[in-house]
Amino acid sequence: MQVVADKGVPREREAWAARYDAVRAYTETLATPLSAEDQTVQSMPDVSPTKWHRAHVTWFFENFLLVPHLPGYRTFDPAFGYLFNSYYEAVGPRHPRPARGLLSRPGIDEIARYRAHVDNAMRRLILILGEEAWTGLAPLVELGLNHEEQHQELLLMDILHVLSCNSIDPVYDALEVETAATPPALEWLSFDGGLREIGHAGGGFAFDNETPRHRVWLQPFRLASRLVTCGEYLAFIGDDGYRRPELWMSEGWATVNAQDWIAPLYWRNDGPGWSVFTLAGRQPVDPAAPVRHVSFYEADAYARWAGKRLPTEAEWETAAIEQGDALHQMTNEAWQWTASPYVAYPGFRPLAGAIGEYNGKFMSNQMVLRGGAAITPPGHARVTYRNFFPPNARWCMGGIRLAEDVS
Amino acid sequence: MQVVADKGVPREREAWAARYDAVRAYTETLATPLSAEDQTVQSMPDVSPTKWHRAHVTWFFENFLLVPHLPGYRTFDPAFGYLFNSYYEAVGPRHPRPARGLLSRPGIDEIARYRAHVDNAMRRLILILGEEAWTGLAPLVELGLNHEEQHQELLLMDILHVLSCNSIDPVYDALEVETAATPPALEWLSFDGGLREIGHAGGGFAFDNETPRHRVWLQPFRLASRLVTCGEYLAFIGDDGYRRPELWMSEGWATVNAQDWIAPLYWRNDGPGWSVFTLAGRQPVDPAAPVRHVSFYEADAYARWAGKRLPTEAEWETAAIEQGDALHQMTNEAWQWTASPYVAYPGFRPLAGAIGEYNGKFMSNQMVLRGGAAITPPGHARVTYRNFFPPNARWCMGGIRLAEDVS
Amino acid sequence: MQVVADKGVPREREAWAARYDAVRAYTETLATPLSAEDQTVQSMPDVSPTKWHRAHVTWFFENFLLVPHLPGYRTFDPAFGYLFNSYYEAVGPRHPRPARGLLSRPGIDEIARYRAHVDNAMRRLILILGEEAWTGLAPLVELGLNHEEQHQELLLMDILHVLSCNSIDPVYDALEVETAATPPALEWLSFDGGLREIGHAGGGFAFDNETPRHRVWLQPFRLASRLVTCGEYLAFIGDDGYRRPELWMSEGWATVNAQDWIAPLYWRNDGPGWSVFTLAGRQPVDPAAPVRHVSFYEADAYARWAGKRLPTEAEWETAAIEQGDALHQMTNEAWQWTASPYVAYPGFRPLAGAIGEYNGKFMSNQMVLRGGAAITPPGHARVTYRNFFPPNARWCMGGIRLAEDVS
Amino acid sequence: MQVVADKGVPREREAWAARYDAVRAYTETLATPLSAEDQTVQSMPDVSPTKWHRAHVTWFFENFLLVPHLPGYRTFDPAFGYLFNSYYEAVGPRHPRPARGLLSRPGIDEIARYRAHVDNAMRRLILILGEEAWTGLAPLVELGLNHEEQHQELLLMDILHVLSCNSIDPVYDALEVETAATPPALEWLSFDGGLREIGHAGGGFAFDNETPRHRVWLQPFRLASRLVTCGEYLAFIGDDGYRRPELWMSEGWATVNAQDWIAPLYWRNDGPGWSVFTLAGRQPVDPAAPVRHVSFYEADAYARWAGKRLPTEAEWETAAIEQGDALHQMTNEAWQWTASPYVAYPGFRPLAGAIGEYNGKFMSNQMVLRGGAAITPPGHARVTYRNFFPPNARWCMGGIRLAEDVS
Repeated sequence: MQVVADKGVPREREAWAARYDAVRAYTETLATPLSAEDQTVQSMPDVSPTKWHRAHVTWFFENFLLVPHLPGYRTFDPAFGYLFNSYYEAVGPRHPRPARGLLSRPGIDEIARYRAHVDNAMRRLILILGEEAWTGLAPLVELGLNHEEQHQELLLMDILHVLSCNSIDPVYDALEVETAATPPALEWLSFDGGLREIGHAGGGFAFDNETPRHRVWLQPFRLASRLVTCGEYLAFIGDDGYRRPELWMSEGWATVNAQDWIAPLYWRNDGPGWSVFTLAGRQPVDPAAPVRHVSFYEADAYARWAGKRLPTEAEWETAAIEQGDALHQMTNEAWQWTASPYVAYPGFRPLAGAIGEYNGKFMSNQMVLRGGAAITPPGHARVTYRNFFPPNARWCMGGIRLAEDVS
Repeated sequence: MQVVADKGVPREREAWAARYDAVRAYTETLATPLSAEDQTVQSMPDVSPTKWHRAHVTWFFENFLLVPHLPGYRTFDPAFGYLFNSYYEAVGPRHPRPARGLLSRPGIDEIARYRAHVDNAMRRLILILGEEAWTGLAPLVELGLNHEEQHQELLLMDILHVLSCNSIDPVYDALEVETAATPPALEWLSFDGGLREIGHAGGGFAFDNETPRHRVWLQPFRLASRLVTCGEYLAFIGDDGYRRPELWMSEGWATVNAQDWIAPLYWRNDGPGWSVFTLAGRQPVDPAAPVRHVSFYEADAYARWAGKRLPTEAEWETAAIEQGDALHQMTNEAWQWTASPYVAYPGFRPLAGAIGEYNGKFMSNQMVLRGGAAITPPGHARVTYRNFFPPNARWCMGGIRLAEDVS
Repeated sequence: MQVVADKGVPREREAWAARYDAVRAYTETLATPLSAEDQTVQSMPDVSPTKWHRAHVTWFFENFLLVPHLPGYRTFDPAFGYLFNSYYEAVGPRHPRPARGLLSRPGIDEIARYRAHVDNAMRRLILILGEEAWTGLAPLVELGLNHEEQHQELLLMDILHVLSCNSIDPVYDALEVETAATPPALEWLSFDGGLREIGHAGGGFAFDNETPRHRVWLQPFRLASRLVTCGEYLAFIGDDGYRRPELWMSEGWATVNAQDWIAPLYWRNDGPGWSVFTLAGRQPVDPAAPVRHVSFYEADAYARWAGKRLPTEAEWETAAIEQGDALHQMTNEAWQWTASPYVAYPGFRPLAGAIGEYNGKFMSNQMVLRGGAAITPPGHARVTYRNFFPPNARWCMGGIRLAEDVS
Repeated sequence: MQVVADKGVPREREAWAARYDAVRAYTETLATPLSAEDQTVQSMPDVSPTKWHRAHVTWFFENFLLVPHLPGYRTFDPAFGYLFNSYYEAVGPRHPRPARGLLSRPGIDEIARYRAHVDNAMRRLILILGEEAWTGLAPLVELGLNHEEQHQELLLMDILHVLSCNSIDPVYDALEVETAATPPALEWLSFDGGLREIGHAGGGFAFDNETPRHRVWLQPFRLASRLVTCGEYLAFIGDDGYRRPELWMSEGWATVNAQDWIAPLYWRNDGPGWSVFTLAGRQPVDPAAPVRHVSFYEADAYARWAGKRLPTEAEWETAAIEQGDALHQMTNEAWQWTASPYVAYPGFRPLAGAIGEYNGKFMSNQMVLRGGAAITPPGHARVTYRNFFPPNARWCMGGIRLAEDVS
């Protein structure tokens, strides 16, 4: 390994180290309001404990960068490879996902030490690696940082669910996470049909599932300039939306009945009216705010009720490029369910090695969401970004943007 | 109602009546080898008893044609509307699907009477309806006949599953259902990329989900001239295909482990080698025959193992049109899993009324299969036909045709 | 084997043969009203299809008597040992109990042939066996006959459940199975405390679980002269009996809520009032008739509500012996839940060999019922007879006789 | 309320206060080695988090003593009545048992404050209550203390299970909890048959389920002078004890297969031999130590394999009284499964009010264990003490003492 120190650390590496530190610090900032107890609980199999998130993103750097690429690196604790591997079959066996909440040890102090240990080593790796080696590894560091950003959002999704299971309505952060006001006026923007290109064009980071860029044929369509509001969604509820099978996909209807859905997740109709559990505690439902925490099934049923439909991901991406400035609430309120199942783009090739499991193996029984949410780390998403969840998922922050055909 | 009898029955109506009789009779032919006991059993929630199929397709004609459109029609038994409605929410409540095998009554003799009652009335309706009324109803009769053809295939799928649950390996029909020989030589046919049209163009019957015809952009691709054989699939098994997670979708891998899959459904490795349970009883696996009764997950994993991929439905349809004569085993052996989730075509509109539930509400968590199988009624399928099942389904007769990119 | 034929058949053997024929014929009489379809259905894991009962009791004779003891006997079908073994682990593997309803083959005609084949052989065995050999086997024949009588009752219990799952309320037999009238006057008979003996004293057939006869110490007690009526039970329902946790065992209360119990099994409150599904079809609830098809939990809760308790099995047996003539409805209406868990009597030894599995291995998590029911074959039960079912079982014909302490 | 302060606090009250403080302090001592994370986890529905135990026993005093009986008492937090009620239906609804591990709040610091608040109030109540009021309440205080002692044992049972779910084998306390040595010689002590009395005779505290004292008739029997050792149990395992159905109750055998039991809970056969997870971490199995953490089904199967049986609870109690000094390991090693289902003693009356739910409502599907275990608080149990668990429970510290008939 060629050490770069004698020439001094190049400025570009310092920028990398600073970005690394910033991303890592933001995770800790998000965990700060949470007690050791809060960080330990797993409220359902989809949810992971906060401390598990903090350790898993650290393991990602340790396992994919430090162990193979930093000479002399000493693993913090060999057992962590088993405890904090999420789903990388190629890396080896791992602690069962639904049992993450059974791990009282290591505790949050131990995990803080783990993070510090890995951070020190990562800074060394970033600063001292020879130029050629660095060129090869920088994409993996970038992937690790984007991975941690995804877990920052998951951490917030998950702790909201954890706290919601407690009848005393605990507050994560009294800061107003929710914004509320008069919603923007609803306009229907028109887009021509024809041949377009979607997918990442290169230049800057993207996940493998955003590639390759490829052509698609679009029919002319219209897209709503803003998201469906809670007030509009209340009209759907009031019109028996959750009791009319003709509005629902067959599996959606089965889910509505099996799980007794009568409103979005976290909504409750108690005495004075509808309230919603948020990171700021229980709040009255704000009719002007975008509806959140609905599943694809609910978004699809709402659209059918409204005489509209959900956009495809190609329509969404095209619209975002062509009229991004006229479209409101594209990235800062709620992810937007599309009508597109999550499948590989034509010619898709996953990354080589264990990292290839990152996205590709989930291309089954999931729907694409586009945009970004209030809990998405700033700067994380982009116009080609493909988020995905199963159609019944409600704990992700999914909302509704409507589309319609041009007849 | 204007009676047409005075002018005599037009020849076109007689053709309709003959077609009606032929389709109905074929259902009874399929049921002939089955005892009252065979026709009563439901071996899993997806399966329906033979006698239920026989009654349900009859109810379809009674409910959607005779009751609303044949003056003076007397319902055979009002209770049957509850017992034999499959999933039409708009028609009313119904007997729970997983409990169809609990219905010992009505017995097969009663169901034969039900069929005769409805057949008599349907013949009247076909023959005596005035021309204008008939023009409006003919598409519904056609739909009913296609519906019954679909249930003819389901009946065979289901009875195979029922009989397979019995350790004494009962025979449905000693007639050789399976064909076996040297497989056709494997060739890779090339197709250009570019703009194409897929979907039903009008002229002749099609289900609503085959419409509207619309443009798609294709990359150049190659398609295998025949299906994957059992011999080729045995090589996948022998190469630990069912034990290598890197070959599988994440949900597929979970299913493999949860259900202990080690081979296609109905295969067993007992003493002398692999055998397969068929409608003709248990038979040795024929290496030359196309592999059948694999799920999408298995088809997808096999393709990955082989360094290929599954075709999209647009590719399959394009190939079938452009080189239908060069491609083997397109419609007569096994349905072919595609890489395409089952979603609405752009601009899709379901039929109006309860009939609109026929296809549209299943457009979630299912994959499209194209072609046709050995058990598909002759003449039922066509090049635009979209069959669909969940990705873990194995009791449908799904096989594998490979595709690859042109680099 | 010494053949007895030359001396002629002794009269005692002819009596055995006649009893054998009578028991076997009664099973067929019970099956007569049932179609092939009726005889095939299994409506829950506890229930067996009628044709399975008919074959299983036959297998019992074939497996435990003919195969080991009739020289030259040819098994009817070797596969039946797997299909119709109920739970005898020592005999070998068997078809899974919850999947008995998946067996469409053998059909009822084949099973009739099986019964005839075994009956012929059994008659030979009974008539020609040498005296010494017969002395050894007669108890096993007697056990087989009592076993078949138990299955006669099970057949009726099970077919009632099967038919009850059908919304068209099929009738097993229009004959009035239920009797109804003014109930006998309720009296409280007093019994002294002290040392007693219970259990089978020898002389005549008894199951192993009725032995050995042994001493028990009783406190003085009182026993109700008749069973709790439907009218009395309606008062319990009307007093919110199913909604008051303080009346219930903890597990009973959990069951009430998990299974939404609001009345005895087969009761329904539709429009005009409570009705009950019976072998004679759906009938109005008769306030004078004994309540039936309640679980132990319901019997226990009712007793608590009434300020009484259930009798122990020792109390029941003592009372039946001491005042059998003053006590009504002891054996002809409904089995009577006792407060006694089903455990071995002191010094209990199960029969040797596979037959030892008959009773002993179920002595866990079951409660004893005493007496007999309207569907119990005449002459089958006796005062020491110990019936047993899990405390949540309702498809057995369980009723309630109250007891109380003498303070 | 008559205040006693002017006369000074009577010495007897000071003794009560000291005992109260001692019991309460011992709970905290047991929790001391546990982190906030450890105290939060619930590893299965039967297990409760440590912090829940600490709060629930506190709620017991608050709810049953302070709220109704201490004038001016201010509830610490009204929400705690919902969160920390275990199963008292009469007190009101409560947080679902399987979801106790979802409660990250209140945290352990808050619970410590809750305990201090209630302790202060309880001391006041004990010290200042007038004599007459005190006489009425003292039994309830005593019940509360015994209740807390039961939860001290549960806390240790539960935390052992929690820690056992972590592959890194965390240590609760490095102190040697287990003792090991040469086992006492095995002797078979004989006891005469005849009439005896069992149950609590009055004088000192007892739970309601130990009463009333009553007569039972015993056959002569013999009892083993010590518990079955791990070495003896290894011989049962080695003799295929877990693979021979003839040794097992039917439900036990089903459980063995459904849960893949091959040894006692916490045992593992890894490389060098059998080890067992304990509160002191993972340890080699000590052949001389009593076997622990077996279910009733395993104890019963072992006894059958050994040609013996389990004692009834009446035999155990009789032996303990008559030869308590000759019998080893009666109360200090492991609870001893008996052959007796847990039912009411003749004439049993539960306590009045909500407290009556303490024991009575569990008298169904549970078996009695007698004696005491290494983790039972010193002085808690007594010779009439009736512990009870379902027959498949293994996380309680159940062991095996054999009995046999005198022929």
